[in-house]
Amino acid sequence: MVNTYDFGLVGLGVMGRNFILNVADNGFTAFGNDLDEEKVNALIEEGGNEEKVNATSSVATFAQGLSTPRKIMLLVPAGKVVDIVIDNLLPHLDKGDIIIDGGNSFFTDTDRREAYLQEKGINFFGAGVSGGAKGARKGPSIMPGGSRDAYQHVKPIFEAVSAKYKGEPCVAYLGPKSAGNYVKMVHNGIEYGLMQLTSEIYDLLKKAGDLTNEELHRTYASWNAGRLQSFLVEITSEIFEQKDDLGDGHLVDKILDKAKQKGTGKWTSQNAMDLGIPVPTIDVAVSMREISALKEERVKADELYGRPIPESVVKKTLVNKAESALYFAFIITYAQGMHQLADASKEYGYELELGEIAKIWRAGCIIRAALLADITQAFKADAGLQNLLLSPSFLDKVQETVGATRELVAYGATNGIPLPGLSNALTYFDAYTSSRLPLNLIQAQRDYFGSHTYERLDKEGIFHTEWED
Amino acid sequence: MVNTYDFGLVGLGVMGRNFILNVADNGFTAFGNDLDEEKVNALIEEGGNEEKVNATSSVATFAQGLSTPRKIMLLVPAGKVVDIVIDNLLPHLDKGDIIIDGGNSFFTDTDRREAYLQEKGINFFGAGVSGGAKGARKGPSIMPGGSRDAYQHVKPIFEAVSAKYKGEPCVAYLGPKSAGNYVKMVHNGIEYGLMQLTSEIYDLLKKAGDLTNEELHRTYASWNAGRLQSFLVEITSEIFEQKDDLGDGHLVDKILDKAKQKGTGKWTSQNAMDLGIPVPTIDVAVSMREISALKEERVKADELYGRPIPESVVKKTLVNKAESALYFAFIITYAQGMHQLADASKEYGYELELGEIAKIWRAGCIIRAALLADITQAFKADAGLQNLLLSPSFLDKVQETVGATRELVAYGATNGIPLPGLSNALTYFDAYTSSRLPLNLIQAQRDYFGSHTYERLDKEGIFHTEWED
Repeated sequence: MVNTYDFGLVGLGVMGRNFILNVADNGFTAFGNDLDEEKVNALIEEGGNEEKVNATSSVATFAQGLSTPRKIMLLVPAGKVVDIVIDNLLPHLDKGDIIIDGGNSFFTDTDRREAYLQEKGINFFGAGVSGGAKGARKGPSIMPGGSRDAYQHVKPIFEAVSAKYKGEPCVAYLGPKSAGNYVKMVHNGIEYGLMQLTSEIYDLLKKAGDLTNEELHRTYASWNAGRLQSFLVEITSEIFEQKDDLGDGHLVDKILDKAKQKGTGKWTSQNAMDLGIPVPTIDVAVSMREISALKEERVKADELYGRPIPESVVKKTLVNKAESALYFAFIITYAQGMHQLADASKEYGYELELGEIAKIWRAGCIIRAALLADITQAFKADAGLQNLLLSPSFLDKVQETVGATRELVAYGATNGIPLPGLSNALTYFDAYTSSRLPLNLIQAQRDYFGSHTYERLDKEGIFHTEWED
Repeated sequence: MVNTYDFGLVGLGVMGRNFILNVADNGFTAFGNDLDEEKVNALIEEGGNEEKVNATSSVATFAQGLSTPRKIMLLVPAGKVVDIVIDNLLPHLDKGDIIIDGGNSFFTDTDRREAYLQEKGINFFGAGVSGGAKGARKGPSIMPGGSRDAYQHVKPIFEAVSAKYKGEPCVAYLGPKSAGNYVKMVHNGIEYGLMQLTSEIYDLLKKAGDLTNEELHRTYASWNAGRLQSFLVEITSEIFEQKDDLGDGHLVDKILDKAKQKGTGKWTSQNAMDLGIPVPTIDVAVSMREISALKEERVKADELYGRPIPESVVKKTLVNKAESALYFAFIITYAQGMHQLADASKEYGYELELGEIAKIWRAGCIIRAALLADITQAFKADAGLQNLLLSPSFLDKVQETVGATRELVAYGATNGIPLPGLSNALTYFDAYTSSRLPLNLIQAQRDYFGSHTYERLDKEGIFHTEWED
């Protein structure tokens, strides 16, 4: 059992167990490691053949069992655990070995770890994995960043285990350093946006259109059969069908409306602000999770303030407009995320190819959607595209759906149904497509009270005025 | 000239010179220090009497000239300069001396510096100063945080030089550590929100109501005579009157619509996300500055996409609704900022009194407004108030103005006039006052694809479902 297994995996939780079984299914021998004997035994049992997939709680045995250069993937919680696992592995590794962090590590942690391991001759990858437990088992989207040379050792395995879109693997070498973790972070930021949008459209359909769960199920299912086809719309349709396993009725109605978060959406927004890239649809998705957490305050506030009774609407018209608006806002959310990636690529030297990223998101991951095939095309056609909204292939899609979006945002505002994601998608669009914005006034204010200076439309230079009061 | 001056100030730029002259005007002797001889001489000349106000480029002479415990204020750019200035001063100081950083330092830098100086027996204050150049000269709002004991030495000077609201000084000891810088940061975040709101209402009045600059001037001036009375509304009215000093017409029309930022708004948003406190009106104000910077892309996008022609409106009705909406959104922006302060106080141990903060913002600072007297009252009446929206004294103000806000947000959405600050204020309100939000769906999605579990409305506990697909 010395130096025989093709692939090692540390962390045999749900994701890790599923990923290693996926590796074994694809003809590679795989060796798992976890401190927890129960998890070790569970994997051995589920694997069924120790020559194909085995596990141990001993780090030494684990390292000895792997063929060199060792290819060791970590699927452990982001944070200090990653550093601890790395330090435990180090005494047992040889130069040229490869460690792949498959968790949602913050990208600057990945850069730090890469530098630390480079000194020791070990290659380090940050490789975001998306697709949840099921994706890990059946084919996730994988976003690896690190040394291009070392990637050649990992490539056959990743390409085999990844999801396929029309036969093409949903994995590609993305760039140096923390490129992989960064891309995964923005993937998750987009995910926050799309989830907020599907949830507020649900609210609208329910409050304005009185749709039952059965109707919501059919509506989202029919949308999923069209241009909105996507994992999140698909599972939303299924969620509305799910019966309560602890009582009567539909489960969705019993779930507490406090949404948790693990931080990747927040990181996306915070880092976008550092870069100076606007991603307001993602920002407000983060805000809404925060507001949702304030349940007690909301209950108090609801008692204090009245709310308009929604004007009646024709159900079918509402559903059609909602489909258009959701499509519009999905496009805007992807546009914001891609814009952030383009800028991050320059700022951090990732050399990202946006077309390649959209391509590996077409299947396997949580934000997979029919739209991503169009986005792939748009960036393949013009690698330097500054914003998806500037792509000729998106012009019609946007123009055809913005009208319905305007109507629904107006309806939500008038009738007290909060549609913050949709509103921010629309105001982003209206601001981004405005050659003139009123922020000349803000520059005037800044110069007035802080002598911060301003530029002019008609003359080059930096100006300051002694304003008369 | 040994140990005679009451107060020392390092950094004789516009703010520093104005602040030290203000100190001298109030009967304290003051000594300035700057490496730049020109600035030193300028101050001596402007001061007119070296016994009252003097300056030197020598750090040693400067320190020798100050009475002990020395009270030395720094008005230098935030960042490394502050550390350099501190290290230059240190060899000349005695235990018990006091350094006050009056710049917009990031609050964690202040905590680091306080710990560093504490070891050396030096008291350190982070004291945000707001009011611009004019405020520094005539009376700013000052937000000091640090050692309560040491504050007693600074208090008489700060109370004398600060702005006064009906005789009450706009300065108070706010709390330990970086409390002062933190409060100033959130002050600036609110400022970002209010500036964005005044600018988008300007856009609306211009595009929907065809108001001329003269009419805009009169409109903002009349608003400033009412419940919207505030520094920002006041200077906005004056800005519309300002003639172009380099050409014909009004200056505001010549200013480039790219708004710059120095980071305090961004910090507010980023830190609010770390705390988990929603401040979407501030977030989107940051986004809009970013979008404004993308001028070239905006020009391209404007050519690609059409824009609705705004429906005609009755000018007077529009102006009245705009006044209501701006008032509503101002309230929401302050509510978000105060909410962030309340939470930060717990998180960082600042022991902030929100009523005291609102009180010292009533005059001198950029966000001073008639509303702050009401906010002061609300927090004096209930120090534990979770959100301004829950204050009985704000109920009528909000209910009376939310209707007009709904109409204008709907109008902006329908007619392609981006009102992101107003929209986010409204959706924040509508979400915060909703006892039920649709984020049960988000929890269902998270449990579906990531087994992240959920809570229920009807039972205690943490649940997970094996969702049927």
